[in-house]
Amino acid sequence: MSATTQAAPKLAILLFPGFELLDVFGPLEMFQFAPGTSPAVLVAEQAGPVANIHGTRVVADYGFDDCPELRCLVVPGGRGTRKQVDNPALLRFIAERAAQVEVLASVCTGAGLLAKAGALDGRSATGNKWSFAWVQQQGPQVRWVKQARWVQDGAVYTSSGMSAGIDMALSIIERFDCSEIAEKIALGAEYEWHRDPSWDPFARRAGLIP
Amino acid sequence: MSATTQAAPKLAILLFPGFELLDVFGPLEMFQFAPGTSPAVLVAEQAGPVANIHGTRVVADYGFDDCPELRCLVVPGGRGTRKQVDNPALLRFIAERAAQVEVLASVCTGAGLLAKAGALDGRSATGNKWSFAWVQQQGPQVRWVKQARWVQDGAVYTSSGMSAGIDMALSIIERFDCSEIAEKIALGAEYEWHRDPSWDPFARRAGLIP
Repeated sequence: MSATTQAAPKLAILLFPGFELLDVFGPLEMFQFAPGTSPAVLVAEQAGPVANIHGTRVVADYGFDDCPELRCLVVPGGRGTRKQVDNPALLRFIAERAAQVEVLASVCTGAGLLAKAGALDGRSATGNKWSFAWVQQQGPQVRWVKQARWVQDGAVYTSSGMSAGIDMALSIIERFDCSEIAEKIALGAEYEWHRDPSWDPFARRAGLIP
Repeated sequence: MSATTQAAPKLAILLFPGFELLDVFGPLEMFQFAPGTSPAVLVAEQAGPVANIHGTRVVADYGFDDCPELRCLVVPGGRGTRKQVDNPALLRFIAERAAQVEVLASVCTGAGLLAKAGALDGRSATGNKWSFAWVQQQGPQVRWVKQARWVQDGAVYTSSGMSAGIDMALSIIERFDCSEIAEKIALGAEYEWHRDPSWDPFARRAGLIP
């Protein structure tokens, strides 16, 4: 654990081998500047470096064993999700935290991990538009929404692919803090925030809707 | 160096203490999927973990001493730039590589580092809209452009803050590969690419133009 994150974390983003970079760092950039979600840290099965499919390594601050209580857990996607749906330790961590956090969220194919952990049963949710069939298969009891930038169902937020995680993160910041703080963070990042969760030109491009 | 990046890298993004996450990982997400810029790696004064201001640690694949020849070097911004403008080793690395690469680029306040290294003298350039005065001070011989998502001047690309780096990265991919590949990568990331380098609503929001 780094010296500058000694305050108790409020939010963690999950890492696993083959995670998608933008799924993690788009939202993290936003969360780290918001009072309601900062300190925001990284957690993995074991603390230490975790690599994406191209070999870029990022350091998990905590392992599953020593991860403190959280207000919010965010699960990214990436090609590694295809293996992680068969990782009982990771699914158990998600299921346990799902029962404790104020907000549970996923980006991209991370929705497949939430679904496989049972955290989306009976809820509406979305995921990456180019891997939608795979995501759907992980949760037959989920009301999958094909066209959505992100879907909020109570305490559970699921977003579309990669860059959609940034818009969802700003919406979670609105919930925990206020819209003025979310707006200020988006402006600071010179980011054109898509505030409308139904904005999704990619569902059509991916052939999910006519 | 990671096992999956054993092919010679074509592009590196510079890390230093206090780098901005989205400046690095927005562009890297794009570059790692493009034939002309992949493998894309991370370089710092020394190989190993480098922390942002919130304590998030990312592993530099190479140090200045062992960084191979590159086709493209990208310099991010972040609060750490305020110290790095006084780091002779970092400025020397940028100046040496500027003379060798096909494309030199910066995101956000990274333009201040390029300017201080002399790599922008006589060129047009832009930078973060909220720290524009500081960026300008680093390069009195630069033609600073207040309103621009990014500026291309020959082999040198400079972008506005944080998310602007993604648009610039896609433009660099167009240059090295083609617009079809850049478009496909943007679609895969479900990212609404701002293709027009003059699109910049933030210059006005930051009070740089009336």
